[in-house]
Amino acid sequence: MISIEEALKMISNSTHSLGYSENNLIDSLGKVLSENILAPIDLPPFDQSAMDGYAFKNGNENVYKVLGLIKAGDDASKIVLNENEAIKIFTGAFCPSSADAVCQIEHVIQNQDGTLSFLPKPNSQANIRKQGEQIKKGTVALEKGHLLTPASLGFLANLGIDVVKTFDIPKVGIIATGNELVAPGTQLPYGKIYESNSIMLQAVLKKYGIEKVILSKAKDDLEATTTTIQTQLQSADVLIISGGISVGDYDYVSEALEKNGVKQIFHKVNQKPGKPFYFGVKNNQLVFALPGNPAAALTCFYIYIVPAIRKMMGGTFEMLEKIEATTETSILKPNARAQFLKAKYKNGNVKILEGQSSAMLHTFSESNALVYLEQNKVIKQGDKVETYLF
Amino acid sequence: MISIEEALKMISNSTHSLGYSENNLIDSLGKVLSENILAPIDLPPFDQSAMDGYAFKNGNENVYKVLGLIKAGDDASKIVLNENEAIKIFTGAFCPSSADAVCQIEHVIQNQDGTLSFLPKPNSQANIRKQGEQIKKGTVALEKGHLLTPASLGFLANLGIDVVKTFDIPKVGIIATGNELVAPGTQLPYGKIYESNSIMLQAVLKKYGIEKVILSKAKDDLEATTTTIQTQLQSADVLIISGGISVGDYDYVSEALEKNGVKQIFHKVNQKPGKPFYFGVKNNQLVFALPGNPAAALTCFYIYIVPAIRKMMGGTFEMLEKIEATTETSILKPNARAQFLKAKYKNGNVKILEGQSSAMLHTFSESNALVYLEQNKVIKQGDKVETYLF
Repeated sequence: MISIEEALKMISNSTHSLGYSENNLIDSLGKVLSENILAPIDLPPFDQSAMDGYAFKNGNENVYKVLGLIKAGDDASKIVLNENEAIKIFTGAFCPSSADAVCQIEHVIQNQDGTLSFLPKPNSQANIRKQGEQIKKGTVALEKGHLLTPASLGFLANLGIDVVKTFDIPKVGIIATGNELVAPGTQLPYGKIYESNSIMLQAVLKKYGIEKVILSKAKDDLEATTTTIQTQLQSADVLIISGGISVGDYDYVSEALEKNGVKQIFHKVNQKPGKPFYFGVKNNQLVFALPGNPAAALTCFYIYIVPAIRKMMGGTFEMLEKIEATTETSILKPNARAQFLKAKYKNGNVKILEGQSSAMLHTFSESNALVYLEQNKVIKQGDKVETYLF
Repeated sequence: MISIEEALKMISNSTHSLGYSENNLIDSLGKVLSENILAPIDLPPFDQSAMDGYAFKNGNENVYKVLGLIKAGDDASKIVLNENEAIKIFTGAFCPSSADAVCQIEHVIQNQDGTLSFLPKPNSQANIRKQGEQIKKGTVALEKGHLLTPASLGFLANLGIDVVKTFDIPKVGIIATGNELVAPGTQLPYGKIYESNSIMLQAVLKKYGIEKVILSKAKDDLEATTTTIQTQLQSADVLIISGGISVGDYDYVSEALEKNGVKQIFHKVNQKPGKPFYFGVKNNQLVFALPGNPAAALTCFYIYIVPAIRKMMGGTFEMLEKIEATTETSILKPNARAQFLKAKYKNGNVKILEGQSSAMLHTFSESNALVYLEQNKVIKQGDKVETYLF
């Protein structure tokens, strides 16, 4: 049985970014740039006042004649200041190149004859944002591989850019297998349970920017499973199957995948929960088969599928945000498998929750983190533990 | 000038949750429950096998006659095991109440006469998930105020629930003010700059679950500003205005808000960036006026508007995820204002970035965290610093 590290490495090696397309800015949020963006203009595009005050050109005396005013947005490119001349100016306004500095309004003294003096007089170039000081035209503003955040969209807009090329989002298919499953909102026959993995996986995909998902269900029989997988593989970049992957007599997923030409990369990882986790590929399509137990399925999603999706979307194969937290809980019984424990993180501390069974979504509902515990290790209250936030 | 803590407290005190509505599960992701959810069934709904193996009833000898099999989903409620009888059973399948335990398949010995023995024999009730052990029918499954995550949606589906009542999402209006602003994708006249705050704020609202936003622009004049605010206040629960809030001669926002009956709660906070930050209310409508400088505007959004939105959506007034991180950067010059510094967090360490000017979105594009630095304090490389992840 392979280790978690090996499993992650194998998935990363098999994962490739998709194509790209051009979108407007708001639709590019959370996507990854597929090309370097060169600044089409200097930023700021001209020397700008950083303050409300007076732009001035030095003279022999600290006495300045006022010429008028420049508001933000005014074209003041023709204004020339001579020695001992000043002009009222506002934050963000064009600052004439003849100005030596801007004196902020609080340091301006009004003389009786209508002239001004500045006390203290600002240093040369003070309170002027120089043209191109944030970025120069033609230099790289954002690199290929950059994940577009609200700030990056603002930055692009600032540069006058309104469309960008980004890597495509994978098309994802989900198959929930199991004769025991019935849809929520209907009557529950004896022996059946409500199906929860498809809504849960659809929701977690949505959280990671994937809104369009094809859901299907398959009974526990080889033919139905094979056909459903075949249909899904016609369009899916990523296929996620829940259940049917153990070694029981009615677990047909592994065989049905093989019949569909999916090459198994690994099956079973030395971890708890999620031991039966399977990963395979067909060309560049990725197939993840998760345990049917919902908490195990979601754990595998967060640990393995999140980084794969990030890489497919043109980013790096990166796990959930990892932090060191102080545990409020001890786990004194070592386990031969490495564990991901559902936990609640707050302000530097993490509490490992009761109810770690792989069937228990109740606990997961109260969690915002997974604590990693190495195989055969224990943790004591107060220890620093490896914590993944989701 | 008030402190950051005072500003947060005043905003929290003025913020109230909205109404609620009923939605299906996937549309409830990221929303907050407006009522307690009682479990409509036991979970699991019946005694379930936790393993593939054999359910059996104890007898005098460790020899068992096999009756047949129970697959997941089978209605096996009529099956009764007598002493020394066993039945093949699969994970998740109905386990007859007459069974004493389930022996996992790996510990089953096939005898030559077709009977089975179990070695080691499992303890009483081993490998049986008891009916209601995750949650009992009629008890509180999720509480009012619970934020619905993918796991909580899975848990609700598991209980057979397909619609829930959640607090409404605020309707948000954004007004970008400034004569100097032109839209990205067009020609840039001399003295003008590209408008970036509305796309940036729209994007960050989307990230926090608010997709529908009304955008408008206003010139720097009192009448235009007053009218635009009036129109927005007809529908917005939250109005966010960028620019026009300093004390320059062309800053009309404060006056225009007063004319619209908005009561100022505070104006100016002792912080950097974002000193001119304004907050006001009109009945239960919240009005935030942000500095026009984009990095300052976004900082104020993350620090003040995120917790307000969370509270409005029925959650608690909670800031961004706070962690303690080790700084790789020293800031040795104390500042009379408390600072939020754009930073890059990774694996427990945080690097404070170059380019902290409130105009610079470039730096914000490379950031994933804000480091808080108290007024008049310094930080040295290796110090633990208060870090907010976004």
